[in-house]
Amino acid sequence: MPKIEVCLTPDLLHLFELKGKNVVVVDILRATSCMVTGFAHGIEAVIPVAKVEECKKLQEAGHMAAAERDGLKLEGFDLDNSPFSYMSPGLAGKCIAVTTTNGTQAIAKSTEADEIIIGAFLNISAVANYLEEQQKDTVILCAGWKGNYNLEDTLFAGALTDILKDSFTVDQDAALGALSMYTHKKGELLPFVMSASHVKRLARLNITKDIEFCVSKDVYNALPVYKEGKLINLKTTTV
Amino acid sequence: MPKIEVCLTPDLLHLFELKGKNVVVVDILRATSCMVTGFAHGIEAVIPVAKVEECKKLQEAGHMAAAERDGLKLEGFDLDNSPFSYMSPGLAGKCIAVTTTNGTQAIAKSTEADEIIIGAFLNISAVANYLEEQQKDTVILCAGWKGNYNLEDTLFAGALTDILKDSFTVDQDAALGALSMYTHKKGELLPFVMSASHVKRLARLNITKDIEFCVSKDVYNALPVYKEGKLINLKTTTV
Repeated sequence: MPKIEVCLTPDLLHLFELKGKNVVVVDILRATSCMVTGFAHGIEAVIPVAKVEECKKLQEAGHMAAAERDGLKLEGFDLDNSPFSYMSPGLAGKCIAVTTTNGTQAIAKSTEADEIIIGAFLNISAVANYLEEQQKDTVILCAGWKGNYNLEDTLFAGALTDILKDSFTVDQDAALGALSMYTHKKGELLPFVMSASHVKRLARLNITKDIEFCVSKDVYNALPVYKEGKLINLKTTTV
Repeated sequence: MPKIEVCLTPDLLHLFELKGKNVVVVDILRATSCMVTGFAHGIEAVIPVAKVEECKKLQEAGHMAAAERDGLKLEGFDLDNSPFSYMSPGLAGKCIAVTTTNGTQAIAKSTEADEIIIGAFLNISAVANYLEEQQKDTVILCAGWKGNYNLEDTLFAGALTDILKDSFTVDQDAALGALSMYTHKKGELLPFVMSASHVKRLARLNITKDIEFCVSKDVYNALPVYKEGKLINLKTTTV
């Protein structure tokens, strides 16, 4: 059976071999939740970039652009980092350049993998079904917070491991740990995530509504994957 | 209230400020469990060193010396890395040079802290009581396995956080995650630790007896702390 591993933060990625594997990048609050929401609403493509300057250049070249740092939208950009902003009908068919504090950095570090898949609670079953079809060793990469471990991404890793545990080998400690935490807290995901330090940081920005949405499972069927420098949606069904 | 933080592996230590704080170094399998056992049996001091060559030099200078890599004792050294080896009456009063794959590396990386305390399930209440007396911000540093997260050290971090949660602030995600996992698994510590990848690696070396012993709580009252290049026992009571 193929193997599931969890990388708890991008600062531990040097310990993993990605070649020949699939990587699921997750940044529940809020980059990958936004991307999944955008694709479900008809966005054509996302160009994830690590640096703000690159994002600005793509905006100047005519793309829509979203830049977030420390939970806040940077001045002069078109979109913030709330999933509700990605539901706008005006975005359908568009290609959007995106840079965020954690999520797009994690994607930039994963390009050695065979395929990068964008995961969130919002599309967890679509991701799980795809991984089961592929039958390939998989690393779930938690974007974390500036290199630190965080609860919400680890809970997603545990939830995805829980779905896949009968068709993948689960014997890596980080996967076992994430699975244990998810099993313990799955009946109270929202209050547990609300206790996370990142959420407390974001709560000051009045985004409780975003957080409630981002821990909702299977709202969408979208399956964003990275192909030649941009994310596209492998499932064409939109809401 | 002072704060408890958990550093899940030494490869994340660059994200932590240690100055002005206490650090508890933990390597349940088996470095810190051995040290606690040794002090409880009257060892005078331990000189923890990161490199095998340093350990050899100290042996040549007349110290007893223990060197372990990848779970095995290196040839030419006096002691292996089993806690039962540290119960020998011949070690009482001795100063022992020690190098291990993970534990002594973690100590070497923590010297900026105000004090380094050696923690294990074997002396968890002695450590907790000392931290409560000190009332200082504390980082629990899991030695992990070659930079990777491991279950047994994280379970100890959760168990220590559980004891201290009413007298310390617990709001860091790694501490909350470790506490959740420990709460979920505390009734079945041994089988859960036996499922860890490190244990599977060690099990090939026939050390199940060591592992059972290393997850036993409060067998000893020893409290090893690092002072001027060596570990000494702050509690003089021995078994």
